[in-house]
Amino acid sequence: MRIRAVLFDAYGTLFDVHSVADLAESMFPGRGAALSQAWRDRQLQYTWLRTLSGRYRDFWQVTGDALDWAAGSLGLELTATGRAGLLEAYLHLRPFPENLDVLRGLRAQGMVLGTLSNGTAAMLEAALAGAGMRELLTHVLSVDRVGRYKTDAAAYALGTAAIGAPAGEIAFVSSNCWDAIGATWFGYRTFWVNRTQAPLDRLDVAPEGTGATLRDLPAFLAR
Amino acid sequence: MRIRAVLFDAYGTLFDVHSVADLAESMFPGRGAALSQAWRDRQLQYTWLRTLSGRYRDFWQVTGDALDWAAGSLGLELTATGRAGLLEAYLHLRPFPENLDVLRGLRAQGMVLGTLSNGTAAMLEAALAGAGMRELLTHVLSVDRVGRYKTDAAAYALGTAAIGAPAGEIAFVSSNCWDAIGATWFGYRTFWVNRTQAPLDRLDVAPEGTGATLRDLPAFLAR
Repeated sequence: MRIRAVLFDAYGTLFDVHSVADLAESMFPGRGAALSQAWRDRQLQYTWLRTLSGRYRDFWQVTGDALDWAAGSLGLELTATGRAGLLEAYLHLRPFPENLDVLRGLRAQGMVLGTLSNGTAAMLEAALAGAGMRELLTHVLSVDRVGRYKTDAAAYALGTAAIGAPAGEIAFVSSNCWDAIGATWFGYRTFWVNRTQAPLDRLDVAPEGTGATLRDLPAFLAR
Repeated sequence: MRIRAVLFDAYGTLFDVHSVADLAESMFPGRGAALSQAWRDRQLQYTWLRTLSGRYRDFWQVTGDALDWAAGSLGLELTATGRAGLLEAYLHLRPFPENLDVLRGLRAQGMVLGTLSNGTAAMLEAALAGAGMRELLTHVLSVDRVGRYKTDAAAYALGTAAIGAPAGEIAFVSSNCWDAIGATWFGYRTFWVNRTQAPLDRLDVAPEGTGATLRDLPAFLAR
């Protein structure tokens, strides 16, 4: 298996999107987890619908829209300050604890690393810098450049173009099963970080490898 | 407002997809509603992802796949008989109580009626016949003919092609806000039957009209 480079999904994979739940919980006691979940679900839904219909808006806009909907659906009154605070938290998401170590290890082995994400360049740069990951990544690729969200092929094609290698020589790593499957459809060598022991999505194909945390990735790459 | 024809979404609009929850509840006491919700959410997600990636499978397949995932995600053991029973229930979904009357009234006024649905022709014919609605509809349009699910424009274009009128002269009615918005993007005169008092999805546009049940539709059409 000749893998030259590894592309990581950002939200849910490098960063824990539910790390905003703590802030949400402090604003709405007892409802933080529900708000975080509804927010994330709707955020993804909007990326898919907008891409299907050719109505792109960037991920910052979509994230704010989804937050407004999620708060409304739970009957929560979101003040302008509260809204700004929750969105701001999206720029400083907590990385999963093992991630920085794993990235450093792969980098030390000479692997080319990058992220390929729905997030805007500004969102990604902020979160990566805050997590101390920025200098480890050669490529910070945002679908904003093509105006189509994953799982559209145009989004995944940013990776092959930037790295200059066929998808079959690039690993794509995501904690989002649908994203790992979309990347599998595209042709990447895929690794699903199944942090929540979720069942495999039923979409005819499976990611090539699966692990419980990013710690399981190096063994997959070394096979 | 010159409206010549009315197209109805089927699942969630003509038929209550959560009418399977009763059967699910009898199989898995205390978990019927959760299974029904997870099943429906995943079913829609799969339609969007498959269309984004050009990996169409028909709605019967997708519905079964989503059921398998949903049961797994809740840790429920689905027997072959139980699975077949739940899927079979999808062919005999309960219509919302007011729907037949409203369709009859519109038909009596000379309105051309149809359904434009993600469902396969076989699924739609079974459910419509069971609900006594089949003879009221001139058009039974399945996205299966184009192999792309809503909100792809190719799906909505089945309606304008069948009716032979521009979208601006056709009403599109859905209880799914995302579907009513997709149809608005396409150009239909849209009516959202907001049965659950859900907040409007934040996708820049709103359906032209909104009601609480299908009983509110005739007044919208008569404006």
